[in-house]
Amino acid sequence: MTKEIIKGIYTPNVVPFHDDHRINEGELRRYVSWLIDKGVTGLYPNGSTGEFIRLSFEERLRVVEIIADETKGRVPILAGAAEPNIAMVLEACKRYADLGCRAVSVTGPYYFKVSQQSIEHYFRELAAKSPIDLVLYNIPQFSNEISLEVVKRLASDCPRIVGIKDSSRDMPRFMDTLNEVKPLRPDFSCLIGTEEILLPVLMMGADGGTIATSGVAPEAVMKLYNSFLKGDLAEAKRIQFKLLELIKTMFAAGNFPEGFREGVNLRGFNTGRGPQPMSPHEMEHFNAISTKLACLLTECGFQEAAKSCQAAKPDVAAMLARINKRVP
Amino acid sequence: MTKEIIKGIYTPNVVPFHDDHRINEGELRRYVSWLIDKGVTGLYPNGSTGEFIRLSFEERLRVVEIIADETKGRVPILAGAAEPNIAMVLEACKRYADLGCRAVSVTGPYYFKVSQQSIEHYFRELAAKSPIDLVLYNIPQFSNEISLEVVKRLASDCPRIVGIKDSSRDMPRFMDTLNEVKPLRPDFSCLIGTEEILLPVLMMGADGGTIATSGVAPEAVMKLYNSFLKGDLAEAKRIQFKLLELIKTMFAAGNFPEGFREGVNLRGFNTGRGPQPMSPHEMEHFNAISTKLACLLTECGFQEAAKSCQAAKPDVAAMLARINKRVP
Amino acid sequence: MTKEIIKGIYTPNVVPFHDDHRINEGELRRYVSWLIDKGVTGLYPNGSTGEFIRLSFEERLRVVEIIADETKGRVPILAGAAEPNIAMVLEACKRYADLGCRAVSVTGPYYFKVSQQSIEHYFRELAAKSPIDLVLYNIPQFSNEISLEVVKRLASDCPRIVGIKDSSRDMPRFMDTLNEVKPLRPDFSCLIGTEEILLPVLMMGADGGTIATSGVAPEAVMKLYNSFLKGDLAEAKRIQFKLLELIKTMFAAGNFPEGFREGVNLRGFNTGRGPQPMSPHEMEHFNAISTKLACLLTECGFQEAAKSCQAAKPDVAAMLARINKRVP
Amino acid sequence: MTKEIIKGIYTPNVVPFHDDHRINEGELRRYVSWLIDKGVTGLYPNGSTGEFIRLSFEERLRVVEIIADETKGRVPILAGAAEPNIAMVLEACKRYADLGCRAVSVTGPYYFKVSQQSIEHYFRELAAKSPIDLVLYNIPQFSNEISLEVVKRLASDCPRIVGIKDSSRDMPRFMDTLNEVKPLRPDFSCLIGTEEILLPVLMMGADGGTIATSGVAPEAVMKLYNSFLKGDLAEAKRIQFKLLELIKTMFAAGNFPEGFREGVNLRGFNTGRGPQPMSPHEMEHFNAISTKLACLLTECGFQEAAKSCQAAKPDVAAMLARINKRVP
Repeated sequence: MTKEIIKGIYTPNVVPFHDDHRINEGELRRYVSWLIDKGVTGLYPNGSTGEFIRLSFEERLRVVEIIADETKGRVPILAGAAEPNIAMVLEACKRYADLGCRAVSVTGPYYFKVSQQSIEHYFRELAAKSPIDLVLYNIPQFSNEISLEVVKRLASDCPRIVGIKDSSRDMPRFMDTLNEVKPLRPDFSCLIGTEEILLPVLMMGADGGTIATSGVAPEAVMKLYNSFLKGDLAEAKRIQFKLLELIKTMFAAGNFPEGFREGVNLRGFNTGRGPQPMSPHEMEHFNAISTKLACLLTECGFQEAAKSCQAAKPDVAAMLARINKRVP
Repeated sequence: MTKEIIKGIYTPNVVPFHDDHRINEGELRRYVSWLIDKGVTGLYPNGSTGEFIRLSFEERLRVVEIIADETKGRVPILAGAAEPNIAMVLEACKRYADLGCRAVSVTGPYYFKVSQQSIEHYFRELAAKSPIDLVLYNIPQFSNEISLEVVKRLASDCPRIVGIKDSSRDMPRFMDTLNEVKPLRPDFSCLIGTEEILLPVLMMGADGGTIATSGVAPEAVMKLYNSFLKGDLAEAKRIQFKLLELIKTMFAAGNFPEGFREGVNLRGFNTGRGPQPMSPHEMEHFNAISTKLACLLTECGFQEAAKSCQAAKPDVAAMLARINKRVP
Repeated sequence: MTKEIIKGIYTPNVVPFHDDHRINEGELRRYVSWLIDKGVTGLYPNGSTGEFIRLSFEERLRVVEIIADETKGRVPILAGAAEPNIAMVLEACKRYADLGCRAVSVTGPYYFKVSQQSIEHYFRELAAKSPIDLVLYNIPQFSNEISLEVVKRLASDCPRIVGIKDSSRDMPRFMDTLNEVKPLRPDFSCLIGTEEILLPVLMMGADGGTIATSGVAPEAVMKLYNSFLKGDLAEAKRIQFKLLELIKTMFAAGNFPEGFREGVNLRGFNTGRGPQPMSPHEMEHFNAISTKLACLLTECGFQEAAKSCQAAKPDVAAMLARINKRVP
Repeated sequence: MTKEIIKGIYTPNVVPFHDDHRINEGELRRYVSWLIDKGVTGLYPNGSTGEFIRLSFEERLRVVEIIADETKGRVPILAGAAEPNIAMVLEACKRYADLGCRAVSVTGPYYFKVSQQSIEHYFRELAAKSPIDLVLYNIPQFSNEISLEVVKRLASDCPRIVGIKDSSRDMPRFMDTLNEVKPLRPDFSCLIGTEEILLPVLMMGADGGTIATSGVAPEAVMKLYNSFLKGDLAEAKRIQFKLLELIKTMFAAGNFPEGFREGVNLRGFNTGRGPQPMSPHEMEHFNAISTKLACLLTECGFQEAAKSCQAAKPDVAAMLARINKRVP
């Protein structure tokens, strides 16, 4: 009994918080259901957008538990399981398997620099012991790179490892991945995590992507994807370019993933602020970006954002009060 | 009287040398004519592949002189003019204008780190004084990056600057370039210098590229480009993927651009070796790669390479003797 | 009632593990008491050498609990508290204050890139809420750099922040730190975390260091420090140079801090292996380095290491069996 | 007949220019004689401070010719010869040998990334053919690093290579260099190029340094050096710290080495501006820094700078006019 290749658009969710720093379970449920209603292929909790690194182990488990419970099997879940050591990764794997997730994704080790040999050995150990399919998560900006040579050997030898999510922003490498891994293992899923090049990689043979923008504008990203599937490249291209400014604006908000969280906010969810505070001066910039973002979203036809677009002068004092209250 | 936008495939030539380190003018002429016969859109001397940095000023001028003389206007020439200071860049510009080149390309300053403001000021000065069109050459691996913000301001303000050749390997940035520069200046040429992603950027709207592989396999690269122009994306895609291994092998030879030079060698030209010697141990690796390269080229149907593919055991001693003689 | 400036040599301990991955409390206690007996100034648990990032939150708390209990106030403890978010850092601070630690050290946020403004804001929040003194831990190799400008502002404004431990390996920066922070706040402790330059920075005015090598050869490091205090620079210099090869060998073992852990092993403690496994091929290299390390330690007069030095042919199979059993 | 080890303080000169971009020979001569009068050990033309990379080959040769002629053997000359290829390096070596220079210094190849094996091979070739002693110039910020392993092999095998000038800012590496190269070759000169750590490395055994600040405040740097030689570490330390702000200010001027050139200006020489222009906005910042620099120099007792310190409001318009005229 073989499982299907992982394909399509998986949405990395931001985590909504209460002002007292607890996960806002109600909003997380409402948000996840909204994403499913909008047609995203699957969900991707505990990725970088989900700030796994800033949550406790228990909070990470809880996020997946809530999402699995809310999803009730309507869409597949790819759950981030980049825990600090092998034992904890495997503990998370077991939990996510029990919750019915489709697979887990695991970054290369972070903080310390680790050799490619150690990284390969690390994933082989995980593959040998995991009760659930694994997706390699390559994000060399933040954690140790998983080299293409290692990916090829793991894809050849480890049936448990079923794909790679590549957020390296390195399209030449992704081209090589398609060219060198697919012939070894046609069912190895090649997913992109770099939104700016979603359409180019789809056109070259990618299986899909984990696209943070699909958490803010799921309608647009799914329209891009579905246009691509139908062969309407002109329409897909038009949307891809239109998304670029949105993406850039959310990155420009500073303190990733706050811009993406704000995008979700502007779509009508009460996300609160993330665990990493910004300085008052950064908040001024953030608020200006938020207004710009609201206007971009309004232009895209998302009427929820319209009132924030009109509010040309955001109440900085009130927002600062809100942010300051948020800090523990 | 306005000039047409620069588009198509420009071929960066390697420079053939005699054993005594002088430029091999005869082979350079023969090589250039062969490239033109194979249908490349234009020529691109004194880029990184042409090792401008390892030649003297006089040699750089001479390379363009030879190529212009041999070309006799059959194809346009985009000449690298990344000289050490503004006065010398302008001297080169004047010479290349007199030789009838279409434009010159200039990198950001190299060696020292220079601010984006200084880089912008540098190009504004060049644009104000140059008698020939300028193309920005972005290659942050080797010289100071030219940021997209600077590119946008220069494109808006300086008619003399007519395009960018981007070798940064950064496709998200190239997407942003297309999205943000083209609306400001539709005739601003966006050329890619990263061979692995030629087709993806063409599909997204690039005007062409400076593609080192087109100096080794011009038939294949031009077929890719022409297939793209005819709308045969399947064929273009097939070729793009086929080229990946060739590109990777030439990079794997070490000591860029020696692998590309060897490719030209295997196509039947006597290129000699470049100015930067390799160690004997590296030469062994190089020779193994050369054999692999010969076999790849033979597979592509380039029969000149066949005999080097059959030579499974290259005569290392002879080649070392040759390389050692080459070093001054 | 003001506390004294933190000075002297603080020893970052490796954490000994049982084969089943649990912390080996008995050996940790025995090791810590041995370090105190050898005369180290203080202890520094949960630093990079203590692999805080690879432990669970509970294990990190437990490590400090064990050490505080074993130390019984004989030496001060500087406890690493680089937790994933402000709430967890403060929770750790409270625990370590209750345990009688002298101060905690906190790195800049890791994984994500964070702006200097956010980092400053982060430490201001911590300083405002922490019940225990804070030491900034600058280690830009692994976590976001804390810029000197931020250090200066924090030192000026936050009495709770009492020092910096700098592991950046950047001596020019450390010189600037001494020159610019000390005049603002003479009691601000400037500690080095780069063993290779301990004596140079002491000579220039550093207050001490957190020196991983003092966990392996505390006699030598303390002799260096005490020679420096007595004004015997020649002897201090001799020891500093002698330590360089030892340090380099421990780094050369790969997979930091395994070389340092092995050094502790060779001094007679059963440290087990760390949470990050090495490949079998890396283990071969590791074993060769271990033998070299044993010989270096024997040369230094540490007789416990002598038998491992004589063992010219380490039993790789046995060691691999051991390491493999260790992996969960 | 063996030559003495290179030791002491070598001063890298900035190059004064006329407004029309030609080298100002008169000021260069006057400046060099002033430096010799102030007691610097030797001169170091065509280093990074001398902007070798921004001059033509002929200008580089001319700079050394002028300096050698002016020096007339009063002090030794270490001449930068980092030319684009081996043939040109050797041509420069021959010229500098004929001019009576003590040695030449050569960086690793720049622009392209080159392997350590190729770099080693490159220096072996140079050592075999050069008619003058060679000093390795390690400055990985701008050119390929020369690894310590390569330095050790070259020091062991090549009598022509007599030292290393290390500007990497990496003090741990410099410690290792002293520890590992000196025993192999006691007469191998270990010179620092990082001004901020001159005294620390002298105390640890360095032979001297190439110190750009000694081109601006030769009195202070030579007093530091001579205090060190006399064993007056307290005085040497006092000066080293005093120099830090001066150094930082000159770096802060932007567009290295413009701050150092301005320092020479303020000492009473007409240096003009360098080949790399700054933007008008950067010039405003530069002028503010220049005033600060003047005041620092005045504080040091250099009365020539006093009038520029008093000029609290520099005439930006006039200076911009000057800078703009300067650009070719």
